[in-house]
Amino acid sequence: MTLLNKDMTLCISLSARPSNNGTRFHNFLYEELGLNWIYKAFAPTDLGQAIAGVRGLGIRGCAISMPYKEDVIALVDRMDPSATAIDSVNTIVNDDGVLTAYNTDYSAIAQLIESNSLDPSASVLLLGSGGMAKATAAAFRDAGFTRVTIAARNEERGRSLADLYGFAWIPDAAEATADIIVNITPIGMAGGADEHALAFSEQQIAAASVVFDVVALPAETPLIAAGRAAGKTVVTGAEVATLQALEQFVLYTGIRPSAEQVRAAEEFMRAQ
Amino acid sequence: MTLLNKDMTLCISLSARPSNNGTRFHNFLYEELGLNWIYKAFAPTDLGQAIAGVRGLGIRGCAISMPYKEDVIALVDRMDPSATAIDSVNTIVNDDGVLTAYNTDYSAIAQLIESNSLDPSASVLLLGSGGMAKATAAAFRDAGFTRVTIAARNEERGRSLADLYGFAWIPDAAEATADIIVNITPIGMAGGADEHALAFSEQQIAAASVVFDVVALPAETPLIAAGRAAGKTVVTGAEVATLQALEQFVLYTGIRPSAEQVRAAEEFMRAQ
Repeated sequence: MTLLNKDMTLCISLSARPSNNGTRFHNFLYEELGLNWIYKAFAPTDLGQAIAGVRGLGIRGCAISMPYKEDVIALVDRMDPSATAIDSVNTIVNDDGVLTAYNTDYSAIAQLIESNSLDPSASVLLLGSGGMAKATAAAFRDAGFTRVTIAARNEERGRSLADLYGFAWIPDAAEATADIIVNITPIGMAGGADEHALAFSEQQIAAASVVFDVVALPAETPLIAAGRAAGKTVVTGAEVATLQALEQFVLYTGIRPSAEQVRAAEEFMRAQ
Repeated sequence: MTLLNKDMTLCISLSARPSNNGTRFHNFLYEELGLNWIYKAFAPTDLGQAIAGVRGLGIRGCAISMPYKEDVIALVDRMDPSATAIDSVNTIVNDDGVLTAYNTDYSAIAQLIESNSLDPSASVLLLGSGGMAKATAAAFRDAGFTRVTIAARNEERGRSLADLYGFAWIPDAAEATADIIVNITPIGMAGGADEHALAFSEQQIAAASVVFDVVALPAETPLIAAGRAAGKTVVTGAEVATLQALEQFVLYTGIRPSAEQVRAAEEFMRAQ
């Protein structure tokens, strides 16, 4: 604490239930890169007042989590295409009082589709219909995928999401197969009700070539473990989480840390 | 930085030209007392938005410096008598969204009058007519002093301050003498135009029994040095500064550090 000083640039996050991930990831990299910056998560009492504070205190960057990703749109000055693509914001950058909104979840998924050379002619099965499902569907659509099915029990949300991107909707994923299967539900999430459940069946995994899980904690969800055991290409939610945090770091600081520094920050983040 | 975590309680200061004093004093004591707290100074771009941020982000405490001490009154929910006494705020405490304003400059001066057993029947000469002069005049008035003269070149401000507390006003201190002489101008302040000047003459010092300087930096102003050399009781601006910061610390945390801890924090604060 005795290293703190008045000139530090502050970045924050706003979430109803903050985790320590952002605070640990960003502060580790600030220290590693010798930046006089500081990061802290907040659970705001009022979103409008919190964003006023971002302006009034000159806070440089602000991560936005549940349940504020849509409500915050009315409070910013500019929308980056990554946020416009899914009408959802997870990052705000403050340039001398002008607040620009981004969505680095969308950018991270788009990057992982590209870096894993996923084939746009492949069939895709997306399980889920929440905000992250929207980011995922938009990223697949924008990468040129057309054979995409959205499986969601909630018909209204599932249909509306599918219609938005010209995809198909089915109520139940159980009977469907696809080349690329993506879990965008809390199934397999540490501490959740379905912590030990598999988001897709062994048969669906066997029929796929790529197994993609958006659940970040644990990094090895039951689905990822099963995909790996079956010799499939796996894309983990931990990769999404790290990549989106890294993109936030780059947007805030203008500095891109090395792959090794990012790995060290990720390790530090997880060693709680 | 790697010690930072999401659960830390944040306190801040708002000033057009922040110093590092508060940041160093408070963070030192947080560490010393094992509190999961953090403190940082800000130069706000907009006072209203910054105070909205105090509410929206749940910031526990907020020191207010120049030029916001009066403007902030309209933005708080409650005024403590210490702030009402001089219509000036230097401290805000946030109790679950209810902002109460205090003035610890006033409290600190009141405490120093008491701890130095200054005699209410003594004559007092106050030099200056700014916000700190108001805090000082109010503290002497509330301690029962009646033989007080305010010396200020600015007739409007000097007269209005004197009238407010039923004191006398004179335009020029040079010919006046008093038992207690108090400098509340920037004379003797490090880095100022009158850095090496004496706020009162050697004759005035000789005629006084108590020499009180509100200038905090350096701790040994020319006036304090001269008062000490002449064997007078001296009260320093550094004592006022430390005491007011300590009162802020107590208001925010509810914990009163030991005299030794305060001394160590003050030393750390000054070792910049």
